[in-house]
Amino acid sequence: MHVTPALRFTAEQRLDDGVLEREFVLGGSSGTPDASGTPDTSGIPGILWTPASDAVPPAPLILLGHPGGLRRMYPRLVGRARHSAAEGFATATIELPGTGDRPPLPVVQQARADVRQALQAGGPVGADVIDALILPLVEQGVPEWRATLDALLALPGIGGPVGYSGGVISIGVRLAVTEPRIVAAGLFAGSFVPRTILDEARRVTIPLHVLLQWDDEGNDRQAALDLFDAFGSPEKTLEANMGGHTGVPPHAGEAAARFFERHLKRPVT
Amino acid sequence: MHVTPALRFTAEQRLDDGVLEREFVLGGSSGTPDASGTPDTSGIPGILWTPASDAVPPAPLILLGHPGGLRRMYPRLVGRARHSAAEGFATATIELPGTGDRPPLPVVQQARADVRQALQAGGPVGADVIDALILPLVEQGVPEWRATLDALLALPGIGGPVGYSGGVISIGVRLAVTEPRIVAAGLFAGSFVPRTILDEARRVTIPLHVLLQWDDEGNDRQAALDLFDAFGSPEKTLEANMGGHTGVPPHAGEAAARFFERHLKRPVT
Repeated sequence: MHVTPALRFTAEQRLDDGVLEREFVLGGSSGTPDASGTPDTSGIPGILWTPASDAVPPAPLILLGHPGGLRRMYPRLVGRARHSAAEGFATATIELPGTGDRPPLPVVQQARADVRQALQAGGPVGADVIDALILPLVEQGVPEWRATLDALLALPGIGGPVGYSGGVISIGVRLAVTEPRIVAAGLFAGSFVPRTILDEARRVTIPLHVLLQWDDEGNDRQAALDLFDAFGSPEKTLEANMGGHTGVPPHAGEAAARFFERHLKRPVT
Repeated sequence: MHVTPALRFTAEQRLDDGVLEREFVLGGSSGTPDASGTPDTSGIPGILWTPASDAVPPAPLILLGHPGGLRRMYPRLVGRARHSAAEGFATATIELPGTGDRPPLPVVQQARADVRQALQAGGPVGADVIDALILPLVEQGVPEWRATLDALLALPGIGGPVGYSGGVISIGVRLAVTEPRIVAAGLFAGSFVPRTILDEARRVTIPLHVLLQWDDEGNDRQAALDLFDAFGSPEKTLEANMGGHTGVPPHAGEAAARFFERHLKRPVT
């Protein structure tokens, strides 16, 4: 049995379309010095967006994944949150381990340098480097997302079912396998996938909607197709569009939204 | 300059949702004996569906492709036609050369037998057999679709732009390359594609929405992915879903409908 870390709201604003945006910190003690006198900054920053009008039934929740760096990603995250809110979904995100204002993860920093070096040398990125880059994010990040889920689902106005959308695909895979409250996942195809995650992909059974950018400069297309093939889900869709990593066309976002609508909205009774 | 063959309506019914279904014959003389006394059955049977309420502007038109055999395919075709009509589209289809009630094409019949034999022997289907199976349908069928388009666009209530949807993908490719009135195509990925059509695919520039059934028993997945890759269109989407050839999920049909809505509907002014 685990104790859910406390979620404290630290800021709140009403966006112009009525969406309520609340920043929060999960766990930690917000800089208060601990027994040794060192400020405890271990809390995880996050943001919760809820629809303008409180629907009578609690809103289904979509966890918004991202590559790390909440401040940098904010404009795109709030865009996704507004769209989701307009369709009746609450959304939430947290900072990834080792990114943004969180304490750095030296092993991941070293792996990032190794990836850059390998790509500059024109060579492939070794499996060990990919493990070192991604696995710490999965090992530490997935329990954090689950703890966030515990805390969010205890709030009034937020219910289930829960979806996971985008971000580091390996985190999405591990969450899909281990977190039964997540019933559907929209993933962004990537090729930096540790071998162990490829094995876990076979055990995923929830409906998946996978976006692939056909000419993604940072990803190997065949590796992405192999990962899609590996997923054990009886219901999975691959949507490939032209262009590079950040060139996802608007209609692909709409298709992902309809995927969540199909799987997260309870039929009106 | 070519003369458009006459289009004669031969039957008409109003479906329960108000859609007007009209059977037609393009060209030929409907069985009237010609000069030699032989009944001329060279007319091409087809069906036109128009929306219940005549919108003020002429309805955009979607040509409904199919694998041949209008009578056999009718239930699925009328389903697609009803959905399209509900969104304001006229739809039309014609019988393919050598299928249904049309005179057989011996070379295609022989190729069909060769394909069966190759598949039963567990071997690959040779490129020459694929050419013999598909190229006659393209060579004869594409001018027929274009003549049909001439005749349909001359009718009151039917305008442009025009889309092509489904059916034999090689016919769709040739139409996309040669018929400028077709501005968007929804294609069903297939691997029985002649080498010359693969070359033509590079010259396609209109927006494409390509459906692929991931475990299609009749198609080679890699060949289908290669064809998708070959298309020259700057805007192309591949949507892959689980299941066999006939297992396209309903949400894939809806996604295709939204594709045509994006590309065929003129903005309301």
